[in-house]
Amino acid sequence: MTAEIVSIGTELLMGQIADTNAQALGKTLPELGIAHLRRQTVGDNLERMVEALRLALNRSDIVFTVGGLGPTQDDLTREAIAKALDDELVEDLHITERLRKLFALRNLPWTESQQRQAMRPACGCPVDNPNGTAPGLICEKGEKVVIALPGPKGEFVPMLEGPIREYLGGRSQAGTIASRMLRIVGMGESLVEKQIAELLGSENPTVAPYAHPAEVHLRLTARAGSESEAQALLQPVEDRIREILGDALYATGDTTLEAHVLGLLKDRGQTLAVAESCTGGSLGARITNVPGASAVFLGGVISYANEIKERLLSVHPGVLMEHGAVSAETAKGMAEGAKGLIGADWALSITGVAGPGGGTEKKPTGLVYLGCSGPDGTVAEEHKFRGNRENVRVRSVQMALVLLRRRLLGIP
Amino acid sequence: MTAEIVSIGTELLMGQIADTNAQALGKTLPELGIAHLRRQTVGDNLERMVEALRLALNRSDIVFTVGGLGPTQDDLTREAIAKALDDELVEDLHITERLRKLFALRNLPWTESQQRQAMRPACGCPVDNPNGTAPGLICEKGEKVVIALPGPKGEFVPMLEGPIREYLGGRSQAGTIASRMLRIVGMGESLVEKQIAELLGSENPTVAPYAHPAEVHLRLTARAGSESEAQALLQPVEDRIREILGDALYATGDTTLEAHVLGLLKDRGQTLAVAESCTGGSLGARITNVPGASAVFLGGVISYANEIKERLLSVHPGVLMEHGAVSAETAKGMAEGAKGLIGADWALSITGVAGPGGGTEKKPTGLVYLGCSGPDGTVAEEHKFRGNRENVRVRSVQMALVLLRRRLLGIP
Repeated sequence: MTAEIVSIGTELLMGQIADTNAQALGKTLPELGIAHLRRQTVGDNLERMVEALRLALNRSDIVFTVGGLGPTQDDLTREAIAKALDDELVEDLHITERLRKLFALRNLPWTESQQRQAMRPACGCPVDNPNGTAPGLICEKGEKVVIALPGPKGEFVPMLEGPIREYLGGRSQAGTIASRMLRIVGMGESLVEKQIAELLGSENPTVAPYAHPAEVHLRLTARAGSESEAQALLQPVEDRIREILGDALYATGDTTLEAHVLGLLKDRGQTLAVAESCTGGSLGARITNVPGASAVFLGGVISYANEIKERLLSVHPGVLMEHGAVSAETAKGMAEGAKGLIGADWALSITGVAGPGGGTEKKPTGLVYLGCSGPDGTVAEEHKFRGNRENVRVRSVQMALVLLRRRLLGIP
Repeated sequence: MTAEIVSIGTELLMGQIADTNAQALGKTLPELGIAHLRRQTVGDNLERMVEALRLALNRSDIVFTVGGLGPTQDDLTREAIAKALDDELVEDLHITERLRKLFALRNLPWTESQQRQAMRPACGCPVDNPNGTAPGLICEKGEKVVIALPGPKGEFVPMLEGPIREYLGGRSQAGTIASRMLRIVGMGESLVEKQIAELLGSENPTVAPYAHPAEVHLRLTARAGSESEAQALLQPVEDRIREILGDALYATGDTTLEAHVLGLLKDRGQTLAVAESCTGGSLGARITNVPGASAVFLGGVISYANEIKERLLSVHPGVLMEHGAVSAETAKGMAEGAKGLIGADWALSITGVAGPGGGTEKKPTGLVYLGCSGPDGTVAEEHKFRGNRENVRVRSVQMALVLLRRRLLGIP
């Protein structure tokens, strides 16, 4: 069974709001075993709405419309559905009665335009909207279904999660879809793909890679008659990927790299500090994204000026003079200094040229040194990142976490 | 001139990510006088991609693809465009050379799959991607144009704002469009809207508000025969808004709040330090987003643990004991301590309950104290922010910058 979403609203095309409803519906459909292969977005224009609906009805079993159900003149979804289904638009007296009661109850004046919300295609069945005025609609005609949902999120989500999910569950015959996300660091997307090439063609489960800055996620998705059957299809594929990628796979599900690293430290009862130069606090900010980070993370120093590196982090003036602020020696000194000053078991440091200015031939923009000091000593590593200032900073933070993870797990 | 976006990626259909790129492009097109009437979203499937592109080429002058340009097997956009345009897919030796150099520079192993990124339709012209590997493409064939942009936001946005905006500006024949962005802090969106209500209905220039966390932007857009005519339409509207909003309007154009505040300090030859608890480095990270921040920003302390607040920032143990870490007194102590320790003219501090855990009845999640210490003394202010951890942290940083701005400009 296939579904297609037609999102309606000029404000969506103009970028004034994000289409979070389509996103929520997109998450729900695979869970119900419904393949969602296409989405269209059109403005509040009857002709283009009908065009989009006819196209969708032609190639998909279930068509969702989102938005355009309100009382104003540019709410044209009801008309468009009737036209696309070659159906009549009729007044539903039950809806009129319900709306009039609602307005009386709330002491609101009844305007003629409210009446529009009581219209529906003759084949349509209204879906109650406890959080708004316009009902949803389920219009079955022949083999096809059009489901119309309201645009306001506070009305859309409860309707989707309640009556629509129930309706679709009854209609879907494809069983269950289960998925798992595997998270990988220390390997580029193309290298991951090359290594697991044998699995990428698999149809059930499917294996799909997603690239993030210095991180790759693999989504495994299986379809089966039941949740346990779907999970049974996923397990051997996950096992095989673990076998191939080894240590590079750091977590499954929603666990971020920072949460994973904090978890490793927490398990050991160890603490962490940071010393940041070009990232200016971004590493600390990312670590403290994790609720409960305080169990492990004590704090750190933002040593943007060299004088702070010397005075607070005790980086030797001779080191700064001889090797410069952007050097392996300074990165080591910063990490050791932060570890001592903060009194943590581990410290990470970052110093580099984030750009766009400040680069030289010997030390170009993107050159970054990461330091890591722990109970067993201090190391530094050099990176050459590309891209703009934001990119260099984001990747520096990511690779600092990767470095600490490697040391904690003893990965070479 | 009409444009249509084809967003590509199974992760978009599955609702794993929001289509913020299409949203950004949707905002840009009307500014350039290009009508954006339809959008399609398809997964990483060649057949459906070609179908969507052919449909779009049939009815729109410019077709954008977003995503699917990476090196992996499911990056099929290049193939799809060639097919939809009935063009050949050829290797661009310049791209290959550039990619190989890049991989050598970064000491990354070259894999055959990288080569995919050097392929393009014969009619395509590559667009440099300084923030990633895959170039964008501009494919002109007859009257039609297909513009292919990469999916990662850090690559997409700079490409759109740079070469693509320039290309489209040259192609658009709707006369000139000029726009200005006015940036406002210290006032909510609805209050701004209410105050400038007289201007919101204006058709040329248009005035469109955009809400950001504790900040509002107003985009003024004028159409006219020439740039100078368009600017002449904008000026009186900007003047009127300045008259109404006064000090709340802090900058125009691309100047961020952090750049504005750093500029004020630089003009005075003064320096800045930070002391951060619940924001964990986010304020420092935001300040150092600004290239050249080092002229003003010296550094700071991330005092996540109370012991660091005491030992490094010299917050009196009695203050922590009596008032707690989340208090006006501690915020003042942190700011004064950072100012002294770092040796700066000004220091900002943040301490609060970011949540989701850690809140109490007296000190609930969202309670944040900001401190500001300068040549003329130290102040603290209390905020009660709503929303999740990220929201509380982002707003804390924003309001700390607003606080410093107010003190620097003597705004009550």
